[in-house]
Amino acid sequence: MRIGVIGLGLIGGSLLRALHAAGHEATGYDTDRTTRLAAVASGLRTVDSLDTWRVDVTVLAVPLPALGAVMPALDGYDGLITDVVSVKTPLRDLLAGRRFVGGHPMAGKETSGFEHSDADLFTHRVWALCLDEETSLDDWLELARLYTAMGARVVPTTAAEHDAAVAAVSHVPHLLAAALVEAAGDPLPRALAASSFRDGTRVALTRPELVAAMAGGNAAAVRAALDRTLASLKEARAALDADDPAAAVEAWFTPAWRGRRDWPSTPGPAQTTLVDRERLLELGRAGGWVHSFDDDRHITVMRPAATVP
Amino acid sequence: MRIGVIGLGLIGGSLLRALHAAGHEATGYDTDRTTRLAAVASGLRTVDSLDTWRVDVTVLAVPLPALGAVMPALDGYDGLITDVVSVKTPLRDLLAGRRFVGGHPMAGKETSGFEHSDADLFTHRVWALCLDEETSLDDWLELARLYTAMGARVVPTTAAEHDAAVAAVSHVPHLLAAALVEAAGDPLPRALAASSFRDGTRVALTRPELVAAMAGGNAAAVRAALDRTLASLKEARAALDADDPAAAVEAWFTPAWRGRRDWPSTPGPAQTTLVDRERLLELGRAGGWVHSFDDDRHITVMRPAATVP
Repeated sequence: MRIGVIGLGLIGGSLLRALHAAGHEATGYDTDRTTRLAAVASGLRTVDSLDTWRVDVTVLAVPLPALGAVMPALDGYDGLITDVVSVKTPLRDLLAGRRFVGGHPMAGKETSGFEHSDADLFTHRVWALCLDEETSLDDWLELARLYTAMGARVVPTTAAEHDAAVAAVSHVPHLLAAALVEAAGDPLPRALAASSFRDGTRVALTRPELVAAMAGGNAAAVRAALDRTLASLKEARAALDADDPAAAVEAWFTPAWRGRRDWPSTPGPAQTTLVDRERLLELGRAGGWVHSFDDDRHITVMRPAATVP
Repeated sequence: MRIGVIGLGLIGGSLLRALHAAGHEATGYDTDRTTRLAAVASGLRTVDSLDTWRVDVTVLAVPLPALGAVMPALDGYDGLITDVVSVKTPLRDLLAGRRFVGGHPMAGKETSGFEHSDADLFTHRVWALCLDEETSLDDWLELARLYTAMGARVVPTTAAEHDAAVAAVSHVPHLLAAALVEAAGDPLPRALAASSFRDGTRVALTRPELVAAMAGGNAAAVRAALDRTLASLKEARAALDADDPAAAVEAWFTPAWRGRRDWPSTPGPAQTTLVDRERLLELGRAGGWVHSFDDDRHITVMRPAATVP
């Protein structure tokens, strides 16, 4: 199986390295010639143009706004396509009618670019892989086999469930971080700010155009997750108004403290299960993942210890 | 000058170490005998009871709820008292009529206890020191001299201004962290959560009773800071509803991105100034700090480069 990666930044470069290290016939392409040369210097195979794109699986590893420029070059391509973009519904729409499986490795770092790529980036990391109604289960399994073999935890989900989840755990945190910076705008609080502020506002350092792309590509889900967060903060505000604010805030805070203490979840025991579309989606909803492939019909899965049936 | 530290946890233990290392006659006390023995084993001087408390300056380094049990033992004591508690107005009220200067070193860590104490904990760290109308300037200067000598940046402020500032940069972040955990309660988002969630929710690991003490001791200021944060988040919510949510979110996010990029501030040049109560408070409001003492009437101060007059 020939695998091609388009876009050799942190994610695409790391994936090309990992595929190459695993012995696959893997080819990379990047619009930037210097990046291609750096990949070649690292012992990787690249092509200088998509005109000669001859692969069985194409991984689109370019940012969402750059996809429009790449897709025309794949007009004649009829192999499997997947991607690594952090919102999935816009990709599902963009690639409707193609042989496509949406993917999203949860492996972002503060660094970017091929120079930070790393063949081990995906080891023990979650890789969300969309199994929507139009998705071929065989195509999904082909990618799941590839990613689990490089140590990733493949989480079966749908584009909509994925987008709702990342709105809560990734997109809304960017909005809260920015609001914290704004609410501490004067010189004295900025001078007194220490580690709570530093960590709570770290993702406000994300480039505004990337936050805009997240919010624009996932507006409905971000609205819903932000509304849940605002509802929770309104409860905190009411607790501060209580006759005994200390007791009321403690009662409000404790379930969240418990929730954070128990994250990340402790994995339960490995379990063997039959490959089945509904079982896979149920696994993802329970916070579980595909660990490895036993044979064509059986896979080993894991899920949080607390949710093992 | 004999200095005594009551409470030998992370902060008190580190302070006793730093004072001892600087050659001061420093004595520690902790209600826990094992902690006292650990301090003695580290070459520090301790006493087994406050009955024999003979010092010129007492640093209260116990948590706010434990102060009530300590104060009766200091009934006959008439020396200078300071503290390290993270809210200042309740201390100001509690110690009204005593010779008192409120203090707060911004040097918390996730660890606690004497075993993590460190003589260098305060080097280059901010130490807020309250110069309220009833505070003796001479007492304030005595402590400022002590703390700057151990490398701390002493920020002059008032109890009220301090409490408003830490509400924004420390207390509200705990509420936002908890709200983020609550809004991402299902197994799938928890499985997909990565570094944005990890950092944005870190302080939700703070023990609920400590968050309760913060909120209870500083409820009015936390309410005000939370209201500013909620107002900012409502603007974000409106941006998500705009015709072009990406553009609207980018416009909303960019000032915060700039504010976080410029934090912590770059210090401007050292400047010599006359010791003066109003000038000191103005320095703190501008995000500046006392760096060192030149002589009885002159100090070296620094402030963020952007605000140097």
